[in-house]
Amino acid sequence: MKIRNFRCVLCKKEYKPSEVEYICTKCGPSGILEVIYNYNSFINKAKVPYEFKNTMWELLNFLPMDNSKKVKKFGDEDTQYFSKDDFNNIPPLKVGGTPIYRNKTLSRQLQIKDLYIKDDTVNPTSSLKDRASALVVKLALDKGVEAITCASTGNAASSLAGICASVGLKCYIFVPKAAPKAKIAQLLMYGAEVFAVDGSYDDAFDLSIEATNKFGWYNRNTAYNPFTIEGKKTVSLEIANQLSFKIPDKVFVPVGDGCIISGVYKGFYDLIKIGIIKKIPQLIAVQAEGSNAIYLAMKRGDKIESIKPNTIADSIAVGRPRNGEMAISNIRASNGGIEVVSDEEILNAMRILAERTGIFAEPAGATAFAGLIKMSREKKLKPDETVVILVTGSGLKDIDSALKAVKKPHFIKPDINDVEKNL
Amino acid sequence: MKIRNFRCVLCKKEYKPSEVEYICTKCGPSGILEVIYNYNSFINKAKVPYEFKNTMWELLNFLPMDNSKKVKKFGDEDTQYFSKDDFNNIPPLKVGGTPIYRNKTLSRQLQIKDLYIKDDTVNPTSSLKDRASALVVKLALDKGVEAITCASTGNAASSLAGICASVGLKCYIFVPKAAPKAKIAQLLMYGAEVFAVDGSYDDAFDLSIEATNKFGWYNRNTAYNPFTIEGKKTVSLEIANQLSFKIPDKVFVPVGDGCIISGVYKGFYDLIKIGIIKKIPQLIAVQAEGSNAIYLAMKRGDKIESIKPNTIADSIAVGRPRNGEMAISNIRASNGGIEVVSDEEILNAMRILAERTGIFAEPAGATAFAGLIKMSREKKLKPDETVVILVTGSGLKDIDSALKAVKKPHFIKPDINDVEKNL
Repeated sequence: MKIRNFRCVLCKKEYKPSEVEYICTKCGPSGILEVIYNYNSFINKAKVPYEFKNTMWELLNFLPMDNSKKVKKFGDEDTQYFSKDDFNNIPPLKVGGTPIYRNKTLSRQLQIKDLYIKDDTVNPTSSLKDRASALVVKLALDKGVEAITCASTGNAASSLAGICASVGLKCYIFVPKAAPKAKIAQLLMYGAEVFAVDGSYDDAFDLSIEATNKFGWYNRNTAYNPFTIEGKKTVSLEIANQLSFKIPDKVFVPVGDGCIISGVYKGFYDLIKIGIIKKIPQLIAVQAEGSNAIYLAMKRGDKIESIKPNTIADSIAVGRPRNGEMAISNIRASNGGIEVVSDEEILNAMRILAERTGIFAEPAGATAFAGLIKMSREKKLKPDETVVILVTGSGLKDIDSALKAVKKPHFIKPDINDVEKNL
Repeated sequence: MKIRNFRCVLCKKEYKPSEVEYICTKCGPSGILEVIYNYNSFINKAKVPYEFKNTMWELLNFLPMDNSKKVKKFGDEDTQYFSKDDFNNIPPLKVGGTPIYRNKTLSRQLQIKDLYIKDDTVNPTSSLKDRASALVVKLALDKGVEAITCASTGNAASSLAGICASVGLKCYIFVPKAAPKAKIAQLLMYGAEVFAVDGSYDDAFDLSIEATNKFGWYNRNTAYNPFTIEGKKTVSLEIANQLSFKIPDKVFVPVGDGCIISGVYKGFYDLIKIGIIKKIPQLIAVQAEGSNAIYLAMKRGDKIESIKPNTIADSIAVGRPRNGEMAISNIRASNGGIEVVSDEEILNAMRILAERTGIFAEPAGATAFAGLIKMSREKKLKPDETVVILVTGSGLKDIDSALKAVKKPHFIKPDINDVEKNL
C-alpha cells in the first residue's frame, strides 16, 4: 500500500487507512490528519501518457493512489510506465502544469539574486485550488459516491464545482451568504447546488459536515479531507522540477487557513524522503494584517486564537485558521517565517505584479508578493537569495478590488489634441 | 524572404513588404492586407527549445519572421532546429498551447459523431486575443518601437496591455468610454495608458490611427495590422495538430469584426499549402442576432452595411465589421455557413457549457456553442460529423451576464432541515 498511515497533527496518533476517513476521532475538528507514505513504493522515473503531460497528473507517482507500475526496458535504463487503470476517473480539465516565470528586473529591484513567479491563475477555474479539487474528485469517483460537498468562501467551492461539472458529478456547496459575487456566479454557472447560509463561514462549514454525515456525500473541505493537501503539494513538486531541483532559498505563500503552505511543505518533504533534494526551502507565510491569527500565534507562542477577519483579500480572510497548527509546524520545520501586510500593501503588490509581469492576481493571489516587497524594503533578504512567490488566484475574480488599486483612465473627447495633452 | 507579398482583400493589389505597413494605400480602411508566404521557405519538421513547448511559438515555422534554421542529423531523419536569435523578443507569458477537450456526452446529445472544444480561456489574459498580441508585440520589439497602441472594446486591448506589461513596452489604449468594467480594470492594472473616448468604437479606432501617425507608435488594431490574423491562426494550427491532422468537418467560430474566423481559415490554408492537409473544414460563423452585419450581408449578396449593435456579447458587438469582406470570402472558400443566435440562446449555451464541461465562457466565448446547439436542434448537422467549437474568452470577464444565465442559490438558515427541504 502506498499510504502507510494517517497521523493526527495534534496528538500524533496514527490510523490505518481503513480506520478513519477525515479527522482524528480523538481530537475532533482540529485533529487534521497527515498522509504518511511508504516511500519505498515510490519510483524515481515514471512515464505518463501524452495527454497527462504538463498537468498535475505527471506527478501520479506522488499521489495517494496505489498504482500498478509496469517496467519497460529502454536501452540501459529502466523506465517505468503506469498502467492504463491508474488514470481512470481523472477529470478531463487540464489542472496544474502551470508556468513559472523568472523575472530579472524585479529581482534586481528587490535586491535578490533571482525571483521566480509561479502562476497558478491559469488553472481551469483560475485558482490553485483546482489541484486539490481534481484529486479529491478522482478519489470520490474511485469510491463511487453519488455526490460531493464542500464549504468555502470562494475559490475552493468554485474550483470543486468546475471540476465536478467536467465529470458530471453532483456537488453541493455551502457558502456564507456574503461570499463574493464572481465566485458565486462561477458556482451557479457550473451547475452546483448552492446553499447560501445565513451565518458565518464556520456555520457553513459545520453544516457541510452535518450534511456529509446525514446524506453520505463525500466531503472536500479544506483542513478536513486529508487529500486536499496532497493535491496542493503538486505545486511545489512542479516548482522543484521547473528549477531542475535546484531548490530556492525562500518560497513565499499567502496564508489564510494554512492549507496551501502545508501543501507546499509536503511536496518538498516528499522529495527529501525519496532522496531527490536535501533541504526544504524556507517557507515564508504571508497573512493580511486583518486576518493574522497564525501570525499572532507564532509571535505569542503558537496557541491559535480566533480573530475577527477584516481584509480585502477574501480568499485568506479567516477567523480561526483550521489548518493553523499544521501550518505553524511546517513553517518552523522549514526554518521559515511569517509576515503580515496591510490591504494597501496588497493592492500595491497587485498593481506592481500586473504592471511588471502581465500577471493579474486577486488580492490573496498577490499577498505573497506583498510580503516579499515588504521584506526587501526592510532589508530582511540577502543579495544571493533565490526566491519563489506563489500567485494563487486570478484578478478577474475580484474586479472591484482591482479598481481600488489603479488610477482612472484619461477621459477625453475624440480629438488628437486631447490625446497629446494627456501624454 | 518568408513573406512574399501583402495582398489587398478588396482590389487584390499586391505590395512588397517594404512598400506598405498596414492597409492598402488605394482602398483605405477597408483594404485590409493578407500576408502571402513563400511556402517553400517553410519546413516540415522544426524543433523549438523546451521553454517554448506547449505555446504558440512551437509554430514559429508558420509565423511571419525570417528564421535562420539549422539542420541537425538525427539518425536517419533530418531534424531542423531554429537558431537562438529566432526567439529574441518573444514575450515571456505562456500564450497558446491551450487544451482541446473531446466531449462524448455532448456529442451524443447533439447527434454528431464527435465534439471537440478548444479552450482559449486559459491564455494569460483569459482570451484568444493573446495570440495576436504576443506576435504583434514581438514584431514591435524587433522594430525597436518605443510604444504600441490599439483601439478596442475589450479583449484585444486588455490582452495587448498584459503582453506589453510582461516585456516593459509602453502601450496606449483607446476605448469607448462605455467599455465593460472588468476589461477596463485589466487594462489599468497592466499599467496601460487608457484613453476613454467620449464617442463610439469607431471614434476610438480613428483616434488610434491618428495617434499612430502623429506619435510613431506601432499599431495593433484588429483589421488594420495584418499580423493579428497571423497570430490568431495559431489556434487552428494547434487544433489540426491536436486532432493528428484528421481535419474536422466543421469549426464553429464566434464572429464580430471577423478577424478570428479569418485567422482560423489562414491556419488551415497554410497547412494545405505545405501539403499537410487536403481540405479546409467548413467554417461556421456565429453572430449575435443583435450584431449580425455579416449575416445580413451574406444573405443579401455580400455587401456589408452598418447596423446598430445590441447584444449581451460585448466582444462581438460591432456596427461595421472591419474584417467583414475577408471573413465572408473565407467562409465561402471553406464551403461554410453563418448562423445567428439570440442573447437568450447565448446565455443558455454559456450555462450548458459550464455545467457539462467545467469551461466558463463569456457571452461571446459561448456564441459558437450556441450556434452549434441551434444547428443541431434544426437538424442541420449529420450524425457522422466531427465538430470543433472555439471558446474564445473567460466568463470571469463578464460576471453580470453570467448571473443572468443562472438560477439563484438556496438561501437557508444554518440548519440541516433547511438543507433537506431544498434537495
